[in-house]
Amino acid sequence: MSLLVTGIGELTTWEPDRDVRHDAALVVDDGVVAWLGDAADAPAADERLDVAGAAVLPGFVDAHTHLVFAGDRVAEFEARMSGAEYAAGGIRTTVAATRAAGDEVLEAGVVRLLREMRRSGTTTVEIKSGYGLSVADEERSLRIARRHTAETTFLGAHVVPEGARVEDYVALVTGEMLEACVPHARWIDVFCEEGAFGADEARAVLSAGAARGLVPRVHANQLGHGPGVQVACEVGAAAADHCTFLTDADVDALASSGVVAGLLPGAEFSTRHPYPDARRLLDAGVTVALATDCNPGTSYTSSMAFCLALAVREMGMTAREAVRAATQGGARSLRRTDVGHLGVGARADLVVLEAPTAAHLAYRPGVDLVRQVIAQPPGR
Amino acid sequence: MSLLVTGIGELTTWEPDRDVRHDAALVVDDGVVAWLGDAADAPAADERLDVAGAAVLPGFVDAHTHLVFAGDRVAEFEARMSGAEYAAGGIRTTVAATRAAGDEVLEAGVVRLLREMRRSGTTTVEIKSGYGLSVADEERSLRIARRHTAETTFLGAHVVPEGARVEDYVALVTGEMLEACVPHARWIDVFCEEGAFGADEARAVLSAGAARGLVPRVHANQLGHGPGVQVACEVGAAAADHCTFLTDADVDALASSGVVAGLLPGAEFSTRHPYPDARRLLDAGVTVALATDCNPGTSYTSSMAFCLALAVREMGMTAREAVRAATQGGARSLRRTDVGHLGVGARADLVVLEAPTAAHLAYRPGVDLVRQVIAQPPGR
Repeated sequence: MSLLVTGIGELTTWEPDRDVRHDAALVVDDGVVAWLGDAADAPAADERLDVAGAAVLPGFVDAHTHLVFAGDRVAEFEARMSGAEYAAGGIRTTVAATRAAGDEVLEAGVVRLLREMRRSGTTTVEIKSGYGLSVADEERSLRIARRHTAETTFLGAHVVPEGARVEDYVALVTGEMLEACVPHARWIDVFCEEGAFGADEARAVLSAGAARGLVPRVHANQLGHGPGVQVACEVGAAAADHCTFLTDADVDALASSGVVAGLLPGAEFSTRHPYPDARRLLDAGVTVALATDCNPGTSYTSSMAFCLALAVREMGMTAREAVRAATQGGARSLRRTDVGHLGVGARADLVVLEAPTAAHLAYRPGVDLVRQVIAQPPGR
Repeated sequence: MSLLVTGIGELTTWEPDRDVRHDAALVVDDGVVAWLGDAADAPAADERLDVAGAAVLPGFVDAHTHLVFAGDRVAEFEARMSGAEYAAGGIRTTVAATRAAGDEVLEAGVVRLLREMRRSGTTTVEIKSGYGLSVADEERSLRIARRHTAETTFLGAHVVPEGARVEDYVALVTGEMLEACVPHARWIDVFCEEGAFGADEARAVLSAGAARGLVPRVHANQLGHGPGVQVACEVGAAAADHCTFLTDADVDALASSGVVAGLLPGAEFSTRHPYPDARRLLDAGVTVALATDCNPGTSYTSSMAFCLALAVREMGMTAREAVRAATQGGARSLRRTDVGHLGVGARADLVVLEAPTAAHLAYRPGVDLVRQVIAQPPGR
């Protein structure tokens, strides 16, 4: 069953020759983009959807989320907004709630947030573990996540659990826990930060994962200057996420290594931390991805549009750069060529806006502009 | 037909004795709140809605919008975000588009934005004129607005139209234009700012309006220090809106006069101007209202939840203070006692959230948390 989407006022494709088209049409067939071009030249199709001048863009690719958890931390949020500082220890509140929850509670939470994300235009979602911190709880977090996305990340090394010694915990993460999680994960991640895991520990975690076929990504340079970005570049990680506190050497390393910088302004919004400088990264030639970091402690937003508006307001990105980072950038972060763009052959994951341009996502902040989402099943 | 809303996890009423209740219920009868109390004590009703632990709060009262216009200014927004400064002259772009548009285009725009607002939980909306700037165009703007809200504001004194001398234009606004607009307006407003209207001109506009039964409100102290707040307090205006650049004397005048300070963080978000200091105002005892300032130039958001999240992030408000400012504060700004709270006898305008507390509106920024809106027809 082919579908012709026509009357597209502005079509964002990210095709190299013509990244944005006007008065365009597009044909979806067998789940992929089969044709695109001027509306006047559109071929026939089994069905037809006239979007009457709306903007159409690729579905958002959210390459950094923590959706498997129980409980919320609204009281901690309110305390922090009244002046208390963010402490990484807050993660432990969610660890306790997650361990205590049944599988069905955890899965219902994932389903609820994924539905919320889909409604707001996100069609590809990475999901990390990291609120289990035991062999059984990390394994089940990833098992649950894997039912809903191919992009699962083993983040046993999120924080050292209460009462554990870091070297013992790294041995567990790189040994028994890794073995239990490998069947359910594509990626391995580590929170490389003062107070969490240092450079040597991060290297140990990432190389153990890589030896078992998982591809590295790193939580890096969020709370202060540190070795995270350098470790990510050294091991050829797909992404270094956060990237708030960067030296010139860090920026150079990202640019020359091709490691994607994942920027997560929802976290800075909800912690009152300084925003990363996207302009500096873009000007240096770094590939930038925007993601929500959706989690109950530091960034409980699921909205890519909100992150995109923040990126324009606070991080020196143009609206077009932000839209690119939220789609193609996310795809690069996940090393996916089938999503994040709408060239011929791409997955037909697309968003129809209640607006004539994709820039309206930044121009109309906080407004739900997603009129319709056309997306293929995640398992495809 | 009475309706029992039960299973309310958190009910925000703003009743003096108990402003927030838990495990509550509420009965709507004949368009008003007929009863509220513990869910266990709820009386019978014709219909029953179990919200299963959700938070319920009064519908938002958006006391500052500019909804009657044609066209958009996305290109100006993009230029500004790339470094160009905001110029009040941008208003003139919208004036030209508005004058050129047919009534049906203007009305369709109002209807579209009101529908968007309603979906996002706003149940009372003030609408200003101010993109006509001629007798006929101001009159028709208000005539159109009046079909959709009782809270219409004559803002002929938005900016001096191109080619006009300020004294001639003030004479027009306070004479023929006022006469044409009075039948359709409840309020009179003036943009008292360097480059727009000075203190004497503002006084002339507001007193002419007051003499014809319109109640004053003022656009004050948005772009720099100026006399706007003092004029508002002197004439007993209902509200001084923007309030970014305030002296201690301005804050004192607001506190002692009871003039409501309307804070419009959507404008600061979309112009990169500094945010007003809500904390300072609240600590001084000033009544604060949050509003969207929805307009195509400087704040094209229609989302009160977004403004509330900004107020918590950027303006030193707690989540509860921000929720209050977005409901009861807006009602005070419009001198309405029937909306903005959910005491017995209040209009039954209420919002059911997809969340257990109203604080989630700040904790989950950018997320559409409005599950259901129960609202009475605006004409009631």
